[in-house]
Amino acid sequence: MYAITIPEPGGPEALVWDEVPDPVPADGEVLVEVAASAVNRADLLQRQGLYDPPPGASPYPGLECSGRVVALGPGVSGWAVGDEACALLGGGGYAQKVAVPAGQLLPVPADLDVRQAAALPEVTCTVWSNVFMVAHLRPGETLLVHGGSSGIGTMAIQLAKAVGARVAVTAGSKEKLDFCAELGADILINYREQDFVEEIKQATDGAGADVILDNMGAKYLDRNVRALAANGRLAIIGMQGGIKGELNIATLLNKRAAISATSLRARPLDEKAAIVAAVREHVWPLIDSGHVRPIVDRELPMSDAAEGHRVLEASGHIGKVLLVTS
Amino acid sequence: MYAITIPEPGGPEALVWDEVPDPVPADGEVLVEVAASAVNRADLLQRQGLYDPPPGASPYPGLECSGRVVALGPGVSGWAVGDEACALLGGGGYAQKVAVPAGQLLPVPADLDVRQAAALPEVTCTVWSNVFMVAHLRPGETLLVHGGSSGIGTMAIQLAKAVGARVAVTAGSKEKLDFCAELGADILINYREQDFVEEIKQATDGAGADVILDNMGAKYLDRNVRALAANGRLAIIGMQGGIKGELNIATLLNKRAAISATSLRARPLDEKAAIVAAVREHVWPLIDSGHVRPIVDRELPMSDAAEGHRVLEASGHIGKVLLVTS
Repeated sequence: MYAITIPEPGGPEALVWDEVPDPVPADGEVLVEVAASAVNRADLLQRQGLYDPPPGASPYPGLECSGRVVALGPGVSGWAVGDEACALLGGGGYAQKVAVPAGQLLPVPADLDVRQAAALPEVTCTVWSNVFMVAHLRPGETLLVHGGSSGIGTMAIQLAKAVGARVAVTAGSKEKLDFCAELGADILINYREQDFVEEIKQATDGAGADVILDNMGAKYLDRNVRALAANGRLAIIGMQGGIKGELNIATLLNKRAAISATSLRARPLDEKAAIVAAVREHVWPLIDSGHVRPIVDRELPMSDAAEGHRVLEASGHIGKVLLVTS
Repeated sequence: MYAITIPEPGGPEALVWDEVPDPVPADGEVLVEVAASAVNRADLLQRQGLYDPPPGASPYPGLECSGRVVALGPGVSGWAVGDEACALLGGGGYAQKVAVPAGQLLPVPADLDVRQAAALPEVTCTVWSNVFMVAHLRPGETLLVHGGSSGIGTMAIQLAKAVGARVAVTAGSKEKLDFCAELGADILINYREQDFVEEIKQATDGAGADVILDNMGAKYLDRNVRALAANGRLAIIGMQGGIKGELNIATLLNKRAAISATSLRARPLDEKAAIVAAVREHVWPLIDSGHVRPIVDRELPMSDAAEGHRVLEASGHIGKVLLVTS
């Protein structure tokens, strides 16, 4: 088969579409013929040599895919050759085939093109596990989503609105904020022109956000804690603004607030399977009923994954950038 | 009645036993004739003018008491004049009488002297709400308690052992660590001589602590995060080591860990009542059955509260310092 390889870490041109051995499904795994994968920020770090795949993971990038089951490893039940599926991956999505633990597979939702389904696994699992399983966002509460127009952001807006929460977003342009508003976002904050702490307080009668979904890490840490409401929960899923930040514990304590930080990729298989099962139970019905949909910025040929990386690095996209095999 | 007043903030001598008006129980409140109160670190800060009582609270120090119900305000059910009780207070425990919201009262456990019961409300509510309601310590997990011989520490050891967890403690002397061992602590760390991060890792095959109960704040923040296990939870309840600390978000994220910080005093009444109800349900039976007991360092006359403050400031005590009215 062909896959995107990284002979030497570097810029987008480091991604090389090359012939490699076919993967073989191990115990409990399914072999998927990939229709599409999607670009995640972690792929950019892996390309630069800054984020090695965890032990046992495929050396090729790609944390999610959609396609068709073409073989079953030993001990797999619930899936059959020919099934369409999408999957959360530890790596290897940028390829014509990938072996996946069966617990990380999800069916392609009804009425959805198989390629569009590649836009779903990372964002649904990340948002559901952080905003709902860890931070327990409840109806009537306010969620602040940084990067509201990203793949994660567009899914967080939709899911939070679907459960009856109020949603605030930050983004860097009017066009992006307008799109967030179309998805249902209630409070729109242009981070280039406005102070999000001030804006969220004004919009909540001084209370602040009950839950914040953050991809910035250190750069926003102090402001995020200040923007939290009493009993607020800050869920950090990225460190685009750095790793080490100053935490004001008194502010946190006076609010009885909490900070969590997670990533999907390094989780053990049983935790991934539990998240995927929860997403199938809670999120998939919302997709089937049309309340939630994948937001796709564009589709690019997988062999030109480099262009997908350039798009994410320029941050001009809205939603997910897909890489399709044909 | 008489109460400890603070005419001017200052050292222990700032505490003055003086005649003041009797409190009057408001709607939903009970008037308690105080048999004993106990000294908490927050009282030391209040005495120094560094921790004002929250709006509506008594101006006198004292966050817990035991005694006898002597009057009921309007709308109180479940309590009668003459009942013995102990109570979580927003303030006012250093006095001959105090008015308490009925939801913050607990019965005096069977076979316990009423004065000893004053050692229970703060430590049981703080430990239960943080270690169990927020951090969800589970049987078989490892809890690290800083200051294992403090009032909080001695209760945390007992409760964690009672639910089947493994307990590590830090303390500053062999005498204190020996006492922690008598209460059931499994892993003893002298913080003056040992690095608690190293010790907890060694004692857990490199895994770390599942839950940490911390009273040091900034000074221990980085080490606490390093000492956490995967999916670990750091519960901060004090800032004896400062307010602002550097947080390594990458370490937190790689462990999928969480940090919470809470205090009891500033919580709204309904949250306090929910915690007290949970303590009555889960902790009181363990006291009645003899699995958990109040640890009292000494009893002092309430009029000499200054001496109680000196004892806490010198940190030579083990367990709670009580202030008794007669």
